[in-house]
Amino acid sequence: MKQTEQAKKITKVAATLFAKKGYNGVGVAEIGAASGFGRGTLYHHIESKEDLLHEIASHYISDLVQSGHSIAREYPDPIQRLRALSRHLMAVISSNLAEIVVCFREVQSLTGSRHYNVMCMHAEYQQIWSKTIEEGVQQNVFREVDKIAVKGLLGMYFYSCLWLKPYGLQSPEDIGDVFSDLVIRSLSKGLNE
Amino acid sequence: MKQTEQAKKITKVAATLFAKKGYNGVGVAEIGAASGFGRGTLYHHIESKEDLLHEIASHYISDLVQSGHSIAREYPDPIQRLRALSRHLMAVISSNLAEIVVCFREVQSLTGSRHYNVMCMHAEYQQIWSKTIEEGVQQNVFREVDKIAVKGLLGMYFYSCLWLKPYGLQSPEDIGDVFSDLVIRSLSKGLNE
Repeated sequence: MKQTEQAKKITKVAATLFAKKGYNGVGVAEIGAASGFGRGTLYHHIESKEDLLHEIASHYISDLVQSGHSIAREYPDPIQRLRALSRHLMAVISSNLAEIVVCFREVQSLTGSRHYNVMCMHAEYQQIWSKTIEEGVQQNVFREVDKIAVKGLLGMYFYSCLWLKPYGLQSPEDIGDVFSDLVIRSLSKGLNE
Repeated sequence: MKQTEQAKKITKVAATLFAKKGYNGVGVAEIGAASGFGRGTLYHHIESKEDLLHEIASHYISDLVQSGHSIAREYPDPIQRLRALSRHLMAVISSNLAEIVVCFREVQSLTGSRHYNVMCMHAEYQQIWSKTIEEGVQQNVFREVDKIAVKGLLGMYFYSCLWLKPYGLQSPEDIGDVFSDLVIRSLSKGLNE
């Protein structure tokens, strides 16, 4: 197993354990035992338990930010971009359920620059959506909405980590399409606007 | 202080402590010390720590269910009803931030009938919203939406417990109005539907 694969496995096992028992309820030794690696291998990859929590909380949001910027470049049209962002967001949530649950529950256990870094990435991701909405307003396809609207719309997606079934009947992309349909209509201009 | 006020205070203090330190990180003795009541008074009101968690997780959702049914009777019109449900939901979230955070994080720590009871009330509350949407569809003001839409729309509200400021610039009712505007538009029929 390559070093990067080892690191990925340790993070996944830790996320699953933290999601199940809480960050404070799991020790580094238990993570080692559950991932099948010895103390040496474990500490080769992580500095501390907080380091692992930071890795769990930052990996998916860093992916969302990077892919979000790519999607923005790929889709200049705000409506098409929202559809693409929506599908991608649901896919990332679906494949990172434990990580996102852990991030929501335990982000306040991160200290100093680790906490700041995770919060900044969430703000940057929200900004990608806000900018898309603003461009839609400028192009006269969306109405102007209160700034708080984007927080609500993103909450629609992120809250799904509490009810989404990994192998449910609908694919994450299908759910993403239902949601982007709601989002686009909620922002669209009416006849007399 | 009346007995019911004592019980309310104990529950509020416990919710704040659980939200801050996690359910497993707080003992009954600490709750007693923080609420200023002795062991006797504490155990007069609660049977166990899980009993307290159940009280925290069930009180706001029981309020939402009861008030939701009243609002449904008061507003036969689906659009007016959604506006009223929206304002009320944001007001309840705003005055129960710690309780809702604790419920989301720790509901799986409830066992047996306590867990079942809380999950049933959440399902019942969702049903109040689903029924309102269905009535709108029957009255030809809303389009038919995938069943999963109501989960997304409610997520918009509940997720706010992670970002809502208790003394923010916008009142919960104002935020409720922004959100119900998004919800109603997202469900409304277009010109050719």
